Formats: sequence, C-alpha cells, structure tokens
Amino acid sequence: MNNLNDLDRVAKSITELKEKVPLVQCITNYVTINDCANILLAFGASPAMCEAYDEVFNFVKLSSALYINVGTLTKEQEEAAVLASISAKMNNIPVVLDPVACGAIPRKLSVINRIFELGRVDIIKGNIGEIKFLAGEASKVRGVDSLENSEGALESCIRLANKLNCVVVATGKEDFITDGKRSAAIQNGTEMLTKVTGSGCMLGALCGGMAGSCEDKFIAAVAAVLSMNIAGEGAYEEAKVPGTFKVKLMDHIYCLSEEKLKEEGKVIWK
Amino acid sequence: MNNLNDLDRVAKSITELKEKVPLVQCITNYVTINDCANILLAFGASPAMCEAYDEVFNFVKLSSALYINVGTLTKEQEEAAVLASISAKMNNIPVVLDPVACGAIPRKLSVINRIFELGRVDIIKGNIGEIKFLAGEASKVRGVDSLENSEGALESCIRLANKLNCVVVATGKEDFITDGKRSAAIQNGTEMLTKVTGSGCMLGALCGGMAGSCEDKFIAAVAAVLSMNIAGEGAYEEAKVPGTFKVKLMDHIYCLSEEKLKEEGKVIWK
Amino acid sequence: MNNLNDLDRVAKSITELKEKVPLVQCITNYVTINDCANILLAFGASPAMCEAYDEVFNFVKLSSALYINVGTLTKEQEEAAVLASISAKMNNIPVVLDPVACGAIPRKLSVINRIFELGRVDIIKGNIGEIKFLAGEASKVRGVDSLENSEGALESCIRLANKLNCVVVATGKEDFITDGKRSAAIQNGTEMLTKVTGSGCMLGALCGGMAGSCEDKFIAAVAAVLSMNIAGEGAYEEAKVPGTFKVKLMDHIYCLSEEKLKEEGKVIWK
Repeated sequence: MNNLNDLDRVAKSITELKEKVPLVQCITNYVTINDCANILLAFGASPAMCEAYDEVFNFVKLSSALYINVGTLTKEQEEAAVLASISAKMNNIPVVLDPVACGAIPRKLSVINRIFELGRVDIIKGNIGEIKFLAGEASKVRGVDSLENSEGALESCIRLANKLNCVVVATGKEDFITDGKRSAAIQNGTEMLTKVTGSGCMLGALCGGMAGSCEDKFIAAVAAVLSMNIAGEGAYEEAKVPGTFKVKLMDHIYCLSEEKLKEEGKVIWK
Repeated sequence: MNNLNDLDRVAKSITELKEKVPLVQCITNYVTINDCANILLAFGASPAMCEAYDEVFNFVKLSSALYINVGTLTKEQEEAAVLASISAKMNNIPVVLDPVACGAIPRKLSVINRIFELGRVDIIKGNIGEIKFLAGEASKVRGVDSLENSEGALESCIRLANKLNCVVVATGKEDFITDGKRSAAIQNGTEMLTKVTGSGCMLGALCGGMAGSCEDKFIAAVAAVLSMNIAGEGAYEEAKVPGTFKVKLMDHIYCLSEEKLKEEGKVIWK
Repeated sequence: MNNLNDLDRVAKSITELKEKVPLVQCITNYVTINDCANILLAFGASPAMCEAYDEVFNFVKLSSALYINVGTLTKEQEEAAVLASISAKMNNIPVVLDPVACGAIPRKLSVINRIFELGRVDIIKGNIGEIKFLAGEASKVRGVDSLENSEGALESCIRLANKLNCVVVATGKEDFITDGKRSAAIQNGTEMLTKVTGSGCMLGALCGGMAGSCEDKFIAAVAAVLSMNIAGEGAYEEAKVPGTFKVKLMDHIYCLSEEKLKEEGKVIWK
C-alpha cells in the first residue's frame, strides 16, 4: 500500500466534505450537544439534532449521515436512536456509533445491540476500554474513561471490525483505525483534549461528517481522527489551558486544509 | 415616517431593557440552551429555563416574556410549550415563537398550530425559508437551514404578519421585520453568524428579552435584530474564526449601548 | 480555632482532589451541564452525567460523590435523582444538593423533600434567597435569582445546617459556609460571576468534586467556594466582558494551586 497516496486521499476527503456540506443528523448526549453542532459547522458540515421518535425516521432520509452517541440517552432518545438506525438501514444512510460507557453501564450495551440487530453501523468510535469491551475482552474502565493503554489495542480493533463488519476507531494516547483489513495508527494529538469534555463526542460527530461525504469509510474515519488531532495540536500551541484551548480547537478545525493535513499528518499505515 | 426618530426609539429601547431587566422564560432546544441563557444575561435580561409541565403554567405568570423554540422539543417540552402559551394568553405575557425546521418536519407545524390556537404569539422569528413556509408559499429548506434568497421575502413577511396578526422577523443575508403595516430591513450583520450554532436561537431569545421590556413589539424586534447584527460585526472585526467569534459575540452583546446602535445601525424603513 | 491552619487545610484539600481524581456523578440541568463537566475536569475531578433511572442506582456505587441540581429536572431526571440519592445513602456516597429555584417553584421543594426523606445530603448549596426559604424564613426571589442581601444570612445558614444536619453554603455578595458549629465567610469573588449563566451550578459541581475527595465536608465546601471565587477574580483581571470571562474562568480553575489559595484566600472564620 502506498502511504503517500493514502494520506493524499485522506487530505483530499476534507476538501470534498467542504464542497458537499453533508447534513449530519445527530442523536447525542446533552452534555456536549452544543460542541458537536459547532464542530460540525466549523468543519464544513451541516448539523441537525432531530431526536423526537415521531420525527426521526423521516428526517434520516434527508440526511447524509447519522451519528448516534449513547452517552446519556433519555428514553425518548433511545427509541429515536433505534428508529433512526432502522431508517438509515432502509435508506442506505451511513451510521457512526459512539458506544460511550458501554463497559460501565449495562443498558448501553442493550441499546447498542438493538442498533446492530435492527439498524446498521458503518463506523464505531470509542476509547480503547470501550472497544476492548465490545470485542469481548477484559477491559479496565472508570465511568466514561478508559484506563487501558495501547497494548493490544489494534488487535482488538481488528477483531471487532471483522466481527461487526464495520470500521473501528479506538482513541487513546495513540489512535487506531481499521476496517479489518487496512489499519492506521495516528500519532498526532495532545493530552489537553482529555481536559475538556466532549473531545470524544466531537470526534464522533466529525466521523459522522466524513461518513456523509466520503464513500470509503476507512479513509473517512482516518480523516476525522487526523483532523481532530491536528486541530488539537494547533490549539495547544496557542493555549495550554482548557477554557481557551477548547475555543481555539473550534478555530483550528475551521482552518484545516488539505495541505495542512498532508504536511502535519503522522499516520502509520499497517 | 421619520427614520431618525425610529432608530432613536430602537436604540433607546435597549437602555430600557437594561433598566427593567425583564425575566424571560425560555422553552428551547438543548443544543443552544446555554447560549440563549448567556446572551440574555449579557444583554441585560434575566433568563429562566422552566420547562416542566407542572411548573410552567404558574412560572409564566411571573415572567416578563415567554420564548418558545421548537428546535428539539421533547414530549415534556411540547406539553410545557403549549401550556406556557396558554398561561401567557391568560396572563397577558408576550410570546416569541421560533419555528425551527417547521418546513422540514411536520410535527413542528402541529405544535406551532396548537400554540396559535390555544395561546398567543407576539413575534415569530424564523429564517426566510421557515417564514415562507408558514406564509403558505413554496420554500426551499435543508434540515434546519433555509436555501432561500431575499427575493420576495419582505412580501412574505407582511402577508404572514397580517394573517397571524403578529410581528414577523425573517433572517437571511438581509433581515426583515414587519408588523404588517410598518416594515424594516436590517443591513448590518456578518456571515460568520451562520458558522456558529445557535445564532438563530440566540436572536430569538433577544427578541424575547425585548418583548419583555418594550411595549411596541415591532420596535422590540428591530432592536433585537439590530443588536445581534451589530454585535456580530464587532465580534467579526476581532475574530475571523468561529470559536473565538462566538466568545466575542457575547462580549459585544454585553457592551452594546444606545449610542452604538444609533451610530452603526443600518436600517431601511419601509 | 487557628485560622492559618484552617486555610492551610482548605488549600491542601485541592491538591488532594487532584491526586484522588474523584468521580463525580451529576444529575443537573441541561442549561449548564456542559459547564459543570468542563469545570470538574479543569479542577482535576472526573465528571459523569449518568441520569437514566435504570442506570443511576448502580452507577452511583462507582462514584466518589453525587451532585444533584434541580434546576430543570425532567420527569426521568427526577426519578433518577431520588434513586441516586437512595443509592448514595445505602452505599455511603456523599451528596451535594443544589436547590435551584426552590422558593419560586413548588415542585422543586417536593423533590428536595423526597431526597432528604429517602436519601442523604451532605452539602446544600444555594443562593441566599433559596437558603432562607429552606430555613423557613421570608425570602425574596425572582425566578432563579435571589433578591436578598447578606443580612442575617449566616444565621439562616446555621439554623438550616442544624435542622438538616448537613453543611450549608449560601452564595451572594459575600458567601457563607457552615456545618452548624464552624462557619466561614468568603470575601473573594467578582460580580462578573453573575453575568454568566451557570456560576452557581458550576460551584455546586465543585462542591461535588471536593465532597468526593475530602472527608471533612465543611472544609470541602469552603475549598470549593474559595476556588470558584479566586478563579473568578483571576478571570476578571484578564477580562471585563462575560464571553471571554467565562473562558478564562475555566483556565483559572485549571491553574489553581494550594499556594494560590493560601496567598489570595480571604476567609473570615467564625
């Protein structure tokens, strides 16, 4: 596999997103819903947060992609998430799933299972603890946080990707993306992303944006992770404190370009 | 009509708001609820987000104005919104309605219709696509966004204002306000307002603030739109990127003064 | 009582929090839920916003502390809040209660009463109006805001602390903390904290963080109030406008240190 060409494709995909302006329908937790909307706008996508169960089935048809985050699903959102995923399956709309806290809270897993059973999932994005848990492995988590290091993480991702037949993203000190055959490790990023709430959710939303404009979901996921991490590095260069950092993160997502991704991307293709 | 005098009245009305500190009861979507509260505080009003159906009827009585935004109404919020509008009618409290996505999602229209049937509405504020839709005209929308240009927009506003007997605000490249007899077009503003989520909701909240302190709802709506757009221009002067822009927007709303509105306001009275 | 030693203990407690990284489970209003999560992260704690009634009972067991804010409780949140407080009682987890608007909205009081009856409360943090109301005294409130001055405030706090057998925090121009025997008045702070939404909720969340890492809940509450107020002063030094102020507030919370608290803390022990 030609690495240069792959990074080129990834970089190009963010220009394509800006041209297509995908409509990303999000059902997500209320903690970071505003951040998810803002980062999608800054990225060049068009967010919509339609989550009533009597609205969502039809609204998904109009969307370019569906993002489901199970962080704090209310009962209404739970129904809406399952219905939306069914609509996505029937209408061929790509779905990104963020399995927040699935290892710590049993209900999350039952919602996730229903989405897999009745709907579709193109990309799962979790932290390493969540991904290992979904892969059926022992996994250390604490609330919504993973206590896992990177050891064996890529292998878990590949196993899960093959089991569920979708792209898997696992975030941590290093980030891994795989579709079961092709894999990548991203070495950009900054720990400051863990000091603001919603970094994970925002990355999930970006995956939704990319899934809505890029046919190859592996490339889409790599582009989303790389964008988040390079923007994070830029923000951290300007601000070592979390309040200002988060504001700058939005600014840097807005200013991302194909060229920047090519120059600064540190992707190890595997 | 004497233009100078009208702009004077508009400008004066924001000083009056700061003196009265109207209590604005909001039932609004969770995407931008924090922004709505913050902008009302920065503007000089006092926000409250009381939305339980067993609280809202009585709470509206204590309020200076009610702001209803149907962006992502849960079932509880839907009941509360209708009840609140009934309480507003019975207790003579002005109501501002933000008919988010009414053209794309049929349920929105049914909620809006109940509010008109059972409650009251003093100001409707939507984007041009939403206003045209409510006026019964062909309208191009995409999710929550309007794809309409300004052509014929004022005429649609006037038609709707006369049909519903309320003030109508339509936002777009140019913003229009009318009570069916008097009309104004605002030429201040910046496109950056469309790159952050919640600009529309925040404007709706400001309309709520103004409706709570200014008897003449046409003047109130013009003041809200002008305030938002002039603050937006100030923020954009300092920040060309959306994260920082949104922060500065709050700062500039806070710093608005009667004098600034008079100096910088570009209002075409019609 | 040795004042120097007490301030030393307070200051030391924030270092201990950073070492322990308490997991703070929050059930809070959607207006400021993002702010509460961010300020806990910046402070050095780990926030979780688990609020489904079929998740919360077990999740509380994993937590270091529980923060309940009744600002805009949905019916699901109401059930979850009561269940969570029961779980906290059974599992010996400290609870911080924020009785938002209890004086203006009767339903709040019935939820609060159930929490006291079935669960436990270690710290109540309200504005002076709310605290006076809970103490059974005449109290002037307007929506979520107190119109009370500091007169008699400490006495009301002490009465309430003895009645409910918990630590009481009353915020206002001056802030008071008491466990019924020991009391403190904090003279740090800035009025700009009242110009951004969520200052009170964020302080409640910080009380939750401190309650999760500090055995002595009186010291814990003093540390939370002092941290908020000193960070507020630092932010106000850099920014006289609310948008930027709020961003800087997070930055300053992140930069707090034991030394800073000892140098800048203005605590009157009573």
